[in-house]
Amino acid sequence: MNQEKQSLRGLKVLDMTQFLAGPYCGLTLADLGAEVIKVENPSGGDYVRKAVPKINGVSMYFENMNRGKKGITLNLKTKEGKELFAMLLAETDVLIENNRPGVMERLGFSYEQAKKINCGIIYCSISGFGQTGPYSQEPGYDLIGQAMSGAMSITGMKGMIPLKYGVPIGDVLAGMNGIIGILAALNYRNKTGEGQYIDTSLVDGLVSSMLTNSLSYFAEGTIPGRSGNRYFNAYPYDSFTAKNGEYVVACGTDQHFIALANAMGMPELAEDSRFQEFLIRKSGESPDALKDIIDKWGSDKTVEECVSTFKAVQIPTAPIYDVKRMAEDKHIRDARKMFVEVEHPVAGKITITGNPIKMSATPTTPNKCAPLLGEHNEEIYGYLGIESTTLKEYKEKKII
Amino acid sequence: MNQEKQSLRGLKVLDMTQFLAGPYCGLTLADLGAEVIKVENPSGGDYVRKAVPKINGVSMYFENMNRGKKGITLNLKTKEGKELFAMLLAETDVLIENNRPGVMERLGFSYEQAKKINCGIIYCSISGFGQTGPYSQEPGYDLIGQAMSGAMSITGMKGMIPLKYGVPIGDVLAGMNGIIGILAALNYRNKTGEGQYIDTSLVDGLVSSMLTNSLSYFAEGTIPGRSGNRYFNAYPYDSFTAKNGEYVVACGTDQHFIALANAMGMPELAEDSRFQEFLIRKSGESPDALKDIIDKWGSDKTVEECVSTFKAVQIPTAPIYDVKRMAEDKHIRDARKMFVEVEHPVAGKITITGNPIKMSATPTTPNKCAPLLGEHNEEIYGYLGIESTTLKEYKEKKII
Repeated sequence: MNQEKQSLRGLKVLDMTQFLAGPYCGLTLADLGAEVIKVENPSGGDYVRKAVPKINGVSMYFENMNRGKKGITLNLKTKEGKELFAMLLAETDVLIENNRPGVMERLGFSYEQAKKINCGIIYCSISGFGQTGPYSQEPGYDLIGQAMSGAMSITGMKGMIPLKYGVPIGDVLAGMNGIIGILAALNYRNKTGEGQYIDTSLVDGLVSSMLTNSLSYFAEGTIPGRSGNRYFNAYPYDSFTAKNGEYVVACGTDQHFIALANAMGMPELAEDSRFQEFLIRKSGESPDALKDIIDKWGSDKTVEECVSTFKAVQIPTAPIYDVKRMAEDKHIRDARKMFVEVEHPVAGKITITGNPIKMSATPTTPNKCAPLLGEHNEEIYGYLGIESTTLKEYKEKKII
Repeated sequence: MNQEKQSLRGLKVLDMTQFLAGPYCGLTLADLGAEVIKVENPSGGDYVRKAVPKINGVSMYFENMNRGKKGITLNLKTKEGKELFAMLLAETDVLIENNRPGVMERLGFSYEQAKKINCGIIYCSISGFGQTGPYSQEPGYDLIGQAMSGAMSITGMKGMIPLKYGVPIGDVLAGMNGIIGILAALNYRNKTGEGQYIDTSLVDGLVSSMLTNSLSYFAEGTIPGRSGNRYFNAYPYDSFTAKNGEYVVACGTDQHFIALANAMGMPELAEDSRFQEFLIRKSGESPDALKDIIDKWGSDKTVEECVSTFKAVQIPTAPIYDVKRMAEDKHIRDARKMFVEVEHPVAGKITITGNPIKMSATPTTPNKCAPLLGEHNEEIYGYLGIESTTLKEYKEKKII
């Protein structure tokens, strides 16, 4: 891949983040060609370096979240560490951090403090609840965000407990909102020279993503509940059971339903008073009755047979893949290249998740390893003019 | 708000999208200050203008998804419509579309065709499965994306059916990936003058968001399953039942657990051989046993009492909010301003969801209405130099 042609080539980013939300922001900037320098404490670094599974001691969690970044160590609580950081700060375009609000200020590097060193800096803080407001000091776990955003209240079966989404989506959304803010701020800075502060959070991102779920409350006071895999506005739009698993069908119109009834060999369903009309079909006891019929029809068929029967008549349908089937799917893996093999100096050949943004002139490059702890100390500190004897001393003193 | 200072001020965007993923991309660009022109067919426009709930006939779904955009009508199947569109295309910076792959080419406006009219255009296609690969013609419903990405396979209770997330997250992620691609491409174009094509999809975005969920499969062949609200790597990290609802606790360490046992008045739990050690506590039958104890303790207490008892000793915990409580929460609503009142010419005062990206120099502006159908025809077509008599004729002929 031609690394010359990357959309963010030349952009310098200091990535002071750990765990998921912040690192996702940094890794995407790296995929887009920015020089992202991950700054870690010298005593072990990012907490997720310890996360399993590991290959030859290398955490696959860390690899996925930090691909394509350079890595340096720095103890920000030491005087020399603060001096080094101020030098890095003077040279950077962007800083990302996901500490609890207040921590960067106590270290001496809040936005207001950083601006004195680098007036054009774009400074992005990602946190659980944001920098302002009564919950700003609450911890930012994904489970807590999903609970307080209302997302869990609309996930799960009717009459059963609220459930979290299996994907840590609060973290991912917060990281993505950070990227959008940074890139928009970069466009503004390119025109005006002015930097700025960006404040985004897990809960903000989750609430924003729910804009279609909360509008009924604001319009008419309706509080949405849980409905399993059903969509309140059409039926059959649900998951169904075949003899070897589950699949989904999304029948939006009467035409779809007639096609479905015919495909099942039950054209009479389309004339049945419970199912004949769109509005009746999705209301009262009709969905339960129809689900029973479709599940009974599928009970002696495989998921593949059910899906191909419905696909043949243009009904939107799909198998419910597990992670293995997704990872081995010819479309996702081969055509869309959503997984990338990387040669790691310690772990050997590993597979990580690729980038979802396919760009024609400046392709995203999710095909590089994450850094070993302190791997780029000599390069980055050398660039700042620090002598190698000083670096050696700093390393012994655990400053880097 | 000072609309002069917006990060994307001056950027022109043609938004050829409907439903959710594409419009979310356009609305965020509008929140950032771009002039986003939504192009709709003259016979009814965006399909979600029909979506309930409505206030005075105005769809709140449409309002949320199209705030801050200008609106024009255009029939792209007519000769005059194509001529008008070519004129719009020549003036724009960005085009967003979420038609099924191939539709724009048949209309005469694929990226390759559009580039001949505007060589620097940034052209973003958002679809269900992407522009390439065997499933590219499959319909792009969120339910289908959640099924095929593997996301449903890891959402739900152990031993029960896979469940979708209640939020149409495939759409939201695709829209956000579109924005990131567009803004990165804009940065590249600012430097080189070169535009490009961006291809992203619901399934690509979902797969990318699952990078921490799929790494065990690539590292060791493990297929992750469903575990309700439990996290496999620590306990108690789950939801619990109080007398009036559910709440979550995220106890990551032994210290947290000792604090929890003391707070419940059961310090002996921290000495119990089933719970004493982190690794034992999260394994075998210990989580079930511990959940029973915590649920029994909470059975005569309200969610608020349970949460405040644990918060008092610094244990990460939260109530599970429904949409009403989220919408009325002092932090989310008042401090973070995640809901915005807008004065609509037909619907009156309405509340829509705000923007999660808080920027200091160029605040996001989610505080404007969506356009009425064809509201800005005179302004936009007038700007192209089309006479008002011609516009009147075109309107009668349903060209606009």
